[in-house]
Amino acid sequence: MQEGIEVLVHEMGLRDGLQSIDTIFATEGKMAWIKREAEAGVPQIQVGSFVPRKLLPQMADSADVVRQSLEIEGLTVSALAPNLKGAENAMAAGAHQIGIVMSVSEAHNMSNVRRTTQDSLDDFARIVECRDAHPEYKDICISGGMATAFGCTISGPVPLPDVMRVAEGLLKRGADRLSVADTVGYANPGQVKELFDELYRTVGKDIAIGAHFHDTRGLGLANAFAALEAGVRELDASLAGLGGCPYAPGASGNIVTEDLVFMLESMGLRTGVDLDGLLEARDIMEAQLKGEPVHGTLAKVGLPMGFKYTSTA
Amino acid sequence: MQEGIEVLVHEMGLRDGLQSIDTIFATEGKMAWIKREAEAGVPQIQVGSFVPRKLLPQMADSADVVRQSLEIEGLTVSALAPNLKGAENAMAAGAHQIGIVMSVSEAHNMSNVRRTTQDSLDDFARIVECRDAHPEYKDICISGGMATAFGCTISGPVPLPDVMRVAEGLLKRGADRLSVADTVGYANPGQVKELFDELYRTVGKDIAIGAHFHDTRGLGLANAFAALEAGVRELDASLAGLGGCPYAPGASGNIVTEDLVFMLESMGLRTGVDLDGLLEARDIMEAQLKGEPVHGTLAKVGLPMGFKYTSTA
Repeated sequence: MQEGIEVLVHEMGLRDGLQSIDTIFATEGKMAWIKREAEAGVPQIQVGSFVPRKLLPQMADSADVVRQSLEIEGLTVSALAPNLKGAENAMAAGAHQIGIVMSVSEAHNMSNVRRTTQDSLDDFARIVECRDAHPEYKDICISGGMATAFGCTISGPVPLPDVMRVAEGLLKRGADRLSVADTVGYANPGQVKELFDELYRTVGKDIAIGAHFHDTRGLGLANAFAALEAGVRELDASLAGLGGCPYAPGASGNIVTEDLVFMLESMGLRTGVDLDGLLEARDIMEAQLKGEPVHGTLAKVGLPMGFKYTSTA
Repeated sequence: MQEGIEVLVHEMGLRDGLQSIDTIFATEGKMAWIKREAEAGVPQIQVGSFVPRKLLPQMADSADVVRQSLEIEGLTVSALAPNLKGAENAMAAGAHQIGIVMSVSEAHNMSNVRRTTQDSLDDFARIVECRDAHPEYKDICISGGMATAFGCTISGPVPLPDVMRVAEGLLKRGADRLSVADTVGYANPGQVKELFDELYRTVGKDIAIGAHFHDTRGLGLANAFAALEAGVRELDASLAGLGGCPYAPGASGNIVTEDLVFMLESMGLRTGVDLDGLLEARDIMEAQLKGEPVHGTLAKVGLPMGFKYTSTA
């Protein structure tokens, strides 16, 4: 965690947002967004995904975007990689943190990457080995991501013990942190609290755990609050809720970064983020969209009278 | 609390929703909505407000609507009244519960009803006396509502001791229940938990306390979850989030009834409400709107795969 902040807000719009919409942003457009958002104090941004160009042309410039983002002082640059090949490219580009995601739901993992979760865990081990085999990569943080941890569009409910099994599998194979994702927007705050309570009991309090919520059913910020209550201090979010759900036209993507920051600062949890700056970054992003919907309330209604940022006491 | 339910969902759309929009619903249109929503299992509906006709023409038929709603078996019929005159009319019409609201913020109360909160407390005492003077009114529940309990658009932050003082003042004057309202959408979930924890410490656990949230800044359901965590078991909500904020075009009104019910049932809290029926009620309501925005996610994306209502064990 960077100095002076209590909750780390991890911007997902450049990856989870852009990969879900039709508009392809130019590299300069991505960089203008990233620079303004980093300047507003967002400490960590997932700037791209190392997937095959033909699969996601939106992400084709990810290596470039990582390299340019590394020049921004103080920013933690993260990227997603779906497999060893992608992770090698992400490491070569210099990403500070690389997210490797597998689905807890066997059916979802099989449908998504045509592998069992066991096979995906084996892949994960090879990625960590690759990092460890290169001394110049020693500071790279490998994040073990668990998708569909709260439910699956193919198999429905996902049992809690399955999540624990994958979490332990990831840590055993060298994950530096864990990320728990409600990929399909199924989670409710009671379940979130239960899952994170159990996860901390299982893996201890020393491992950094992030939470990734989608606002598909309006419960995104309620789930974020439940995660905070359980002790989570790293939250993914997407500027203007950019993204969405392929099955639900107009549905929100990740929880809205600016609304999340408002919630955290109101609650007395320091984020280091300036909301005016964040809304300027939103303008820069929005100007590049081609009709895709944006979400969030803060941009519409502004801050409450008498709002104060949590002081850096 | 009605039998078999764990959280009471109190529909506000007919009052807080309709009073905030331009369209004036015909009495038959209101009744079609109320009947379908009651049939879907919503146990309590605030069907109108006993304000002067020239002030809110949308509410001019409130006495009629109360009388017709009383014919719906099992429904608790509530109404709002701004003063003794309104309360007398609401009692004469036969409302089961009458909400009397004052602002905790002196500045807001003065601007709204040109009275100090102390004067409003004295008015409240007269309303209770009026109820007690008529044996035929003995079963009427008088609810003491505290508006701007989480912040005020005129004076900003509202100190917690002020809320406690008004709460005790209301109970001392015979309030049968309390309702705590984030009238202007300023609350955050940390504050909500703190306020209700303190309120239960102050007034004890025996008095029914309801919570009323607006989703102005996207935190409505997070605030509802925080209130549940603190022990609140009565929540106001508005179908499709009907309503809004006069200062923020497109902003949501109360928290969305159907999204709230989804959250509660997902969390294992019985509401007695059928979501399909609720969405039918929403259609009936929406068909009468003239371009006013509606909100909520459930109507867009539907229920998660494998969703189960909490069983009535």
